[in-house]
Formats: sequence, structure tokens, C-alpha cells
Amino acid sequence: MRREKLEELKKQFEELKVVEMQKQRYREKTFLTSELYECRLKCGRVIFREKLLKGKKEGSAAIIFALTKQGDVLLNVEPRVFTKETVALGFPAGYIEDKEDALMGAKRELLEEHGYEAEEMVLLDSFYQDEGCSAAYNQIFFASGCQRVASQKLDKDEIIYPFLVSLEEVFELNRLGYFKGANSKLAIVKAKEYIKRRKSCVK
Amino acid sequence: MRREKLEELKKQFEELKVVEMQKQRYREKTFLTSELYECRLKCGRVIFREKLLKGKKEGSAAIIFALTKQGDVLLNVEPRVFTKETVALGFPAGYIEDKEDALMGAKRELLEEHGYEAEEMVLLDSFYQDEGCSAAYNQIFFASGCQRVASQKLDKDEIIYPFLVSLEEVFELNRLGYFKGANSKLAIVKAKEYIKRRKSCVK
Repeated sequence: MRREKLEELKKQFEELKVVEMQKQRYREKTFLTSELYECRLKCGRVIFREKLLKGKKEGSAAIIFALTKQGDVLLNVEPRVFTKETVALGFPAGYIEDKEDALMGAKRELLEEHGYEAEEMVLLDSFYQDEGCSAAYNQIFFASGCQRVASQKLDKDEIIYPFLVSLEEVFELNRLGYFKGANSKLAIVKAKEYIKRRKSCVK
Repeated sequence: MRREKLEELKKQFEELKVVEMQKQRYREKTFLTSELYECRLKCGRVIFREKLLKGKKEGSAAIIFALTKQGDVLLNVEPRVFTKETVALGFPAGYIEDKEDALMGAKRELLEEHGYEAEEMVLLDSFYQDEGCSAAYNQIFFASGCQRVASQKLDKDEIIYPFLVSLEEVFELNRLGYFKGANSKLAIVKAKEYIKRRKSCVK
């Protein structure tokens, strides 16, 4: 791992750390809501289950393992205020919007969060984020041949520091324990498998 | 894969399928709630983030990849009413309770859901379930030498059909796409790595 890169990462983490956190007593509207369902099963049993909604939607997300033409992987350093470190390293990702499919969402997020466009995008895997209480179905994409075409364009309350490292460095940062979220961990496993498969095809 | 095992699994899935689902209009209290926080970062920015709570707690869970003395892996077939199939295959798992650490929670869940006790339990990995909006930090355990010591003892609204297959069959079911949740997918990856490491140590 290049020492200056690790220093850069630590500096980004430092800047985004939470120094003060206050619970708000009065809330007008919330992003997280839920619905309760009575479900009758084929075996005759009746059970109640509660479904999490994010902004009134299911909250399915696209996660992008993006490789640039120069061989860098695009990573995000973001405030994750409820984690122990309050900051986390991860991949470009975001909720799929209405009238979008997962691929369209992935392309939009890559452009908004990093200003990049991909030559090719391949679906690596799909999974339920929290299958007991949510319908959120996330999709991991591998984006190759990515090139910068615009500047970062974030939502008002969003903060993302782009962090670019080589493929080997991503796997090293993973071994060092920098990726702590389920989405990121699965993205790394699936990208690794994909790269291995692709290499063995070329041979 | 033994044909009778796959038939058994399909029968279990069939029985637990949702045949009717009704949204409840009136709700007294909910399991899923949230809190809003105002967070000041070291860089000076102030952001708002909402935190998901499950039963007023963070919702951290223990997931157990459990191998019996006979060489079977203990799996759960459960209603997952918000997934496409409405039923899912997974591992023994559950929320860690107050005054419990993750290991204690894992032992309790293994006993409640399957009536089994393990000779040894090893922590394989930890991860945030949904780091953007939750503090839930899940832990995956590998339980070996499991033996049946009691009967299943579930909560009122819980339904779990135990499903036992060999180690090879677990990986085959994974290739067939039977595991669809983030927790289950990560448990399989980490268990596979652990088994490989253990084998190479023995050699």
C-alpha cells in the first residue's frame, strides 16, 4: 500500500468524524417509516410482519465497484455517524429511484458521486439487505473503463470524499478492516470472484 | 445434492408461502422506529441523519453457521414475507438481547431455534447491516461439534422449519441461488474461508 494514500485516507477520515451529536426531540417528517402486514401462510398460520420503508420506498440500492481506465478503483469516504468510527470507507452506491432500474440507478450514482461514466457495467450479484423486515433488494455492479466526464454533484445533505486506489490496494484495505458495511463486504467478494473469472477466461 | 433433500426443501418453502397479505391501517405500537440526530463534523459541516431502531434497540444480530457432530449444517426455512418468494433459506440468527454479548446471543439463538449446543464457537466476521441509517453490527459465528440437547422453543410469532444438509450441499444450495439475504451470503463466504484455512492448518 502506498504510504501517501493511507495518509490521505486517514486525513479524510479525520475531517469527517463526528465531534458532536444531538438527538432531535421534535420531528416533522421522517425518512424511515414502516407498515404492518397481516400475512396468511399456505400452512394456515397467520403472522404479523413490519416492513421498513425509506422515503416511502423499499430502499433498494445499487452498489458500484468501478474501475477507471487508469486502473484505479473509485471509493467513497463518507460520514456514517452511527458506526463506531463515525466515518466509513465504501463504494459508490445509492437508492434506486422511481422509474429507474438498478442499472440506471448505478449509472446515475456513479456520475453524481464521482462524475464518472463507465464503458461497461456488469451485474455481479443481488441480495436482500435485511430480509426479515425490508424488501430492499440491492444489486452490485462491476463498472469498467470508467472515465471522468463531469464534477461531483451531491444532494444537499450528502458528503462524499472520493478516494482512488489501485485494485490491489482495495483488497489490502479490506484485509486491514477498512470496509465494515455488508454492502461493501459483499461488493469486494463478488468483484474479486469476477476479476478471477475474467482473468481465467483471457488465459 | 440428494434429491429427497431438495424435495423436502421445496415442500417447506411451499408450506410457508404467503397466500394473503393485508396492510394494517391502525397500529398501536411499532417494532421499527427511528431517531433523528444533528451531527457536527470535525470539518465544520452539520448534517442530519436518521437512525433505525428495532424494539428500541440497535438491532445487532448474531448469525450462526452451525455444524453438527454428524456433519450436518443447521439451516432455517422461514417466512420472509417481503421477499419475492415470501420464504427464505438462511442460518440460525437473531437479535442480541440486553445484557448479552454477541456470543451469548449466538448460543441462545442456536438453542432456541434448533435445540442445539456447540462444543466450540469462533467469531468469523462482523459488519454493519445498513451503515447509512443503523448502528446494527452483526457478528457471524462458526459453531462446531453441535449436538441436540433440547427441542425448538420459538417466540409466539416466529416460524422456523429446521433444514439439515451436508456442508457440500450448503455450498450447492448457494450456487443454486437459495440464499438471498446479505447475512446469509456473508456467512457462507466467511465459513468457506474458515473451513479452507482450518484444512490447510491440519495438513
